[in-house]
Amino acid sequence: MSGNKQVIVIGRPTAIPQAEHFAITESDIPLIGEGQVLVRNMFLSVEPAMRGWLADTGNYSQPIPVGSIMRALAVGEVTESRIPEFTPGERLMGWFGWQTFAAVSTDAVIRKIEEDNLSPSLALGVLGLNGVTALLGLEKVGRPVAGDTVVVSTAAGSVGSAVGQIAKLLGCRTVGITGGAEKVAICLDEFGYDAAIDYRASDLHQMLAQACPHGVDVYFDNTAGPISDAVYRQLALHARIVSCGTASVSSWNPPPNGPRVERIIMTRRATLGGFVVLDHMDEFSAASARLAQWVREGKLRYREEIRDGIEHCPGAIAELYDGRNFGKLLIRLDQPGAGWVDGR
Amino acid sequence: MSGNKQVIVIGRPTAIPQAEHFAITESDIPLIGEGQVLVRNMFLSVEPAMRGWLADTGNYSQPIPVGSIMRALAVGEVTESRIPEFTPGERLMGWFGWQTFAAVSTDAVIRKIEEDNLSPSLALGVLGLNGVTALLGLEKVGRPVAGDTVVVSTAAGSVGSAVGQIAKLLGCRTVGITGGAEKVAICLDEFGYDAAIDYRASDLHQMLAQACPHGVDVYFDNTAGPISDAVYRQLALHARIVSCGTASVSSWNPPPNGPRVERIIMTRRATLGGFVVLDHMDEFSAASARLAQWVREGKLRYREEIRDGIEHCPGAIAELYDGRNFGKLLIRLDQPGAGWVDGR
Repeated sequence: MSGNKQVIVIGRPTAIPQAEHFAITESDIPLIGEGQVLVRNMFLSVEPAMRGWLADTGNYSQPIPVGSIMRALAVGEVTESRIPEFTPGERLMGWFGWQTFAAVSTDAVIRKIEEDNLSPSLALGVLGLNGVTALLGLEKVGRPVAGDTVVVSTAAGSVGSAVGQIAKLLGCRTVGITGGAEKVAICLDEFGYDAAIDYRASDLHQMLAQACPHGVDVYFDNTAGPISDAVYRQLALHARIVSCGTASVSSWNPPPNGPRVERIIMTRRATLGGFVVLDHMDEFSAASARLAQWVREGKLRYREEIRDGIEHCPGAIAELYDGRNFGKLLIRLDQPGAGWVDGR
Repeated sequence: MSGNKQVIVIGRPTAIPQAEHFAITESDIPLIGEGQVLVRNMFLSVEPAMRGWLADTGNYSQPIPVGSIMRALAVGEVTESRIPEFTPGERLMGWFGWQTFAAVSTDAVIRKIEEDNLSPSLALGVLGLNGVTALLGLEKVGRPVAGDTVVVSTAAGSVGSAVGQIAKLLGCRTVGITGGAEKVAICLDEFGYDAAIDYRASDLHQMLAQACPHGVDVYFDNTAGPISDAVYRQLALHARIVSCGTASVSSWNPPPNGPRVERIIMTRRATLGGFVVLDHMDEFSAASARLAQWVREGKLRYREEIRDGIEHCPGAIAELYDGRNFGKLLIRLDQPGAGWVDGR
């Protein structure tokens, strides 16, 4: 058994975190104490939200201290346990960090992974923070009803693609906004959007108007910025906007300027609501189970983009923001003998 | 009995409506048909919302056509009736327009005025569109609970002063934002705000932070613009913002730029909701009755600023936006023998 590799935060980014903000160190595999389990990580998650977790102001959680292990969700196997409810060999999803081994107590564990015939990696994407964000954000803030027009920004991404498909399952017309012809094609062919628009097109406003002839009832916003400005102009009466991410804005300190929204919010009697899935962790397992059922039935598709080796961690957040990746970005660690079935 | 004087819209304002956009004409007193009443107007209302009713884009109702009588709420006395439920001598509040006499059918009538010992003028202010907007906007979108900090912009105005007092009645800490030392004093002494801030002060942000040490739970926004920008920086977790008016912004075509709000909305899990009282006219009479009870009990104070004569109508909207008036601005028409008691 090799040592424990850990990705340490060595600098505080002011905008998108880059490789230079991290260093990889090696240490001994930790010993566990009473009330702890030792987890050997199989997959490490990369989230757009990590930008916020690392920012020193204006976020929803305490910033990760410089010098500590990068906060991250991971899926791993229990190798040693001093907690009665967890047994070696079981797979867990939780806050295990960007490292090979994690010695954690129960409060770091989000759930036991018990899905049959699905890759444990899904617990970090379509059944994880991304899928649960899509499902609960859409239901709690978006409140779509059949027949609504639902517009999604970062429509081909891990959250967006799930939002689009779930809205479609609920009987909505779905319109995706994404970057580039290849992602437009994926939105239409793979994720079943009724229409998909390249936000780089010069006539974004006109394309949106055409794709939403009755206006936008629900806007699930992962980008903010000029993309959202265009969507706001099309809001239907009583529209609901889920503010879930701000991927298009590289720095919020200070906030950039854009067209004021008060008038359109008032005249359309619209509602703009912020959504952070971490507020709803008590509903996480139930939401994961609903998503898993859709995946098994072939109704909810997903993409994963997997990099092998912890050395891919430091540059991975910046890669997300470049918009170059397709699907959930994961880091796979050495797993001799891993043998799950890819459920895609 | 003299003829019917009418204020006609003669130009389409692009920003704040001015006297030049109106003309006063004289015509015969209208004859009523089957299903109509003739109302002699006693008080004509002046609303900030008239700016929007006259704008040709971006509002919540069809723009008032050039050449027609200015749309307005009024209180008047029935002088002739061909509707069984209305009797000459009764007082009505409704969409009677800026004119001396109105021949209207039932759908123009909002309610019969039956409050004892209160001036019928109140039906246009603290018991009218302003008070009902304050009460229902606060309850439906602001959803204050005892102990919340409620911030109100245009705190001394007809809507704002009611919001502040109602929030106080509900057990909230109330902070008013208004313009100038005189209005600050009125907010504190007359409307019972726990703190009042002059938005013209150079350290608005700091004063707000001091007045709201636990952040802002509810923001009832009548101004938008830089005042709101300062309030947003103080939002508490799960804050609710009522977007009810945009008095500080003179033109929305195109919308002016300001700091983008998506990040603060998301990280604070705030909700921004548009409120237009015209959506809730079925609750109007019940809301008026609740407000009247508070007025009778001395728990809800108000100010009126009354101009005598229809010739004051054309310049009245601009006066509202100048911020020079104190309290509900009303135009009183000739009323020989009117003898109500001023309930202030």
